Amino acid sequence: MKLSEFSKTDLEKFYKDETAKLEEYKALGLKLDMSRGKPSPEQLDLSNEMLTHCLDGDHISETGVDCRNYGVLDGIYEAKRLFMPMMGVGRYEIIIGGNSSLQLMYDTLARAMLLGVKGSPEPWCHRKTVKWLCPAPGYDRHFAICEAFGMEMITVPMLEDGPDMDVVEKLVSEDEDIKGIWCVPRYANPTGVVYSDEVVKRFASLNPKAPDFRIYWDDAYCVHDLTDEHAEILNILDECKKTGKPDMPLIFASTSKISFPGGGIAAVGGSEENMEFMRKQMSYQIIGYDKLNQLRHAKFFKDYDGIMEHMKKHRAILKPKFDLVVETLERELAPLGIGTWSNPKGGYFVSFDGMEGTAKRIVSLCKDAGVTMTGAGASFPYGIDPKDTNIRIAPSYPSLEELGKAMEIFTVAVKVATAERLLK
Amino acid sequence: MKLSEFSKTDLEKFYKDETAKLEEYKALGLKLDMSRGKPSPEQLDLSNEMLTHCLDGDHISETGVDCRNYGVLDGIYEAKRLFMPMMGVGRYEIIIGGNSSLQLMYDTLARAMLLGVKGSPEPWCHRKTVKWLCPAPGYDRHFAICEAFGMEMITVPMLEDGPDMDVVEKLVSEDEDIKGIWCVPRYANPTGVVYSDEVVKRFASLNPKAPDFRIYWDDAYCVHDLTDEHAEILNILDECKKTGKPDMPLIFASTSKISFPGGGIAAVGGSEENMEFMRKQMSYQIIGYDKLNQLRHAKFFKDYDGIMEHMKKHRAILKPKFDLVVETLERELAPLGIGTWSNPKGGYFVSFDGMEGTAKRIVSLCKDAGVTMTGAGASFPYGIDPKDTNIRIAPSYPSLEELGKAMEIFTVAVKVATAERLLK
Repeated sequence: MKLSEFSKTDLEKFYKDETAKLEEYKALGLKLDMSRGKPSPEQLDLSNEMLTHCLDGDHISETGVDCRNYGVLDGIYEAKRLFMPMMGVGRYEIIIGGNSSLQLMYDTLARAMLLGVKGSPEPWCHRKTVKWLCPAPGYDRHFAICEAFGMEMITVPMLEDGPDMDVVEKLVSEDEDIKGIWCVPRYANPTGVVYSDEVVKRFASLNPKAPDFRIYWDDAYCVHDLTDEHAEILNILDECKKTGKPDMPLIFASTSKISFPGGGIAAVGGSEENMEFMRKQMSYQIIGYDKLNQLRHAKFFKDYDGIMEHMKKHRAILKPKFDLVVETLERELAPLGIGTWSNPKGGYFVSFDGMEGTAKRIVSLCKDAGVTMTGAGASFPYGIDPKDTNIRIAPSYPSLEELGKAMEIFTVAVKVATAERLLK
Repeated sequence: MKLSEFSKTDLEKFYKDETAKLEEYKALGLKLDMSRGKPSPEQLDLSNEMLTHCLDGDHISETGVDCRNYGVLDGIYEAKRLFMPMMGVGRYEIIIGGNSSLQLMYDTLARAMLLGVKGSPEPWCHRKTVKWLCPAPGYDRHFAICEAFGMEMITVPMLEDGPDMDVVEKLVSEDEDIKGIWCVPRYANPTGVVYSDEVVKRFASLNPKAPDFRIYWDDAYCVHDLTDEHAEILNILDECKKTGKPDMPLIFASTSKISFPGGGIAAVGGSEENMEFMRKQMSYQIIGYDKLNQLRHAKFFKDYDGIMEHMKKHRAILKPKFDLVVETLERELAPLGIGTWSNPKGGYFVSFDGMEGTAKRIVSLCKDAGVTMTGAGASFPYGIDPKDTNIRIAPSYPSLEELGKAMEIFTVAVKVATAERLLK
């Protein structure tokens, strides 16, 4: 029976019982964390050999570069070769960065603001207004960059197969203040959505009013499948070449969730002309990123196949955790007709939507009971979820046992918050 | 006899003979490089063990941080502890960055432009004009950042014990567009000058008209002595605390020329309030720099004493090279009364000043004969040396044998260019 169909008396009893359960959890003094997409220690162990067995007396790249010394701004070839098939770019269409794709994205935007991008009539910071399209729910750190730079964020609804392209097409063709859009095309954070071919084609066919509009294509989960099936998406750079707009997309990826979040390597890709322009701008900032870490990664993974094999090991650890989350939601909430959730085939998150006006309360109840969730609203521009429904669940870090307990508490919190709301 | 006192006939013969020598060198097809302050492979070998023997099964920091995972924006404590005595800052006065102090400097300036610094009435990019003081000769990459951001660079003469403080004091107290100054206080690039106590005190006592004026204190060569005597300078942060201006200095350093230029770690220091402000701004850009590399460095060097011991090994390799440069200049040029040069007690450069109007010609003659020098003028804002006299000699990278040959060619080029000039 659905909770919304409970009699008032039954609902009051239900509320009392579930609240009592929460009180019991509270008394346990638990400290469980489902807030961030952090790999577990067990996952990190998969790459430990990289730290000791890769650079023994060997620090010269294939092309003869001493990786210990200065130089090679855009990275060594063997590191590029690792990323090229992941990102769908060629040898001259990629720059290898430091340990953080977020840093590459921030820096790319900061340079656009201060110096402009290829084709900019002026640095963006000289404009009165810079607007940015933000498909939501989306990645909180993307939105935070826009907020830091004082950009005006415009929310675009996320549909089953990507952002609502009707909205995107209309807005970018009409408003020259709109300079870009955030996209996570594969296993989107937090919805798990994989962009359809049609969505990618419509992106490539955009006719932005701003001559220097850019698609920020954050392919953070490009090889992060949770099933045996690899999610293939259309190659945005190829599609944009076909439409004569090769400079429109900028593609980002990293090994943060392949090797180590704290010591991986990141990359940015795009047209040769974009990369040439970017290298020139970057040369003011840095002589070269950490080439030893690039070589370490190249030697450990060897090639794309090596990465795909490695990802199977991650999957073996992650899949049971995602299953546990979805099973718990199915078991505890589906019979009561509360909420909807994603059952993603990849990425790092389960996206949960509760009854309107309950998300903040759920997160707060969880916190009181010792379970940290991502803040409600975090997946929306300015941290404001207009319906207060969405919560991002990150199952990767806790152990299966901890996760089971955390999800138990989460579902009780959902029940309490929903009953509370229905009783109002 | 001084070249300037040669008879015209003698000078013509001298010019002909030396030009013939240059032609002979040209025929050898040499490829020698004295252009950048790059450590030699022999120096890099000193740290090779770091690449394999430091993180064997050990990736947890002293405070319990798993360095493989996300987090700890400002770096692990043991890495801070390495830098604190080098930079003269306390535990809460430092942030550890990636592999490049240039990146930290650029980023710090970029944030000032886009977001402002502590105490800024507005982000600097909202101002019509931002001016910057550039003691010259100085570091070309410092000046390049200013140029990229469209700042107006004002040259300040370098004296024997630091920048001309009369000029600095007057300018900063009168012009609120002046937002900062570049300093390399120890073994300055390229002059080798060590700032005197008086200069440091006068810096700390500046009364800038701009409320958000910053001293960029790039202590790149803080432990890079070439003699047994360690260059001690007054602690700029301490001095600025005494004058009630703790937020004025920002101090930079790195292990680029201690461990590996391509895979070292860098740091920025300053008042607690400055660092707190900076951490908040940085949190938009990156979740955390490479903590595994920080741990690697901490384990390899252990502490400040470990670094100072390690620097002795660098010195043993570098000192004979600097001696060879200075000896060759003394032998070949001093008797002819051509030029002046530094005999630095640390750092990476010998600064040479030839006759007015000859520097470009010397560099060009060297290039034709197979010796690459730093471009003439590079040490000045906008790449323009008003008197065309200064050339930066970087002796670290070539072998002693190569360096001997390169300096031979360099001195012949100096002779040719000077004779040419005198004959005009």
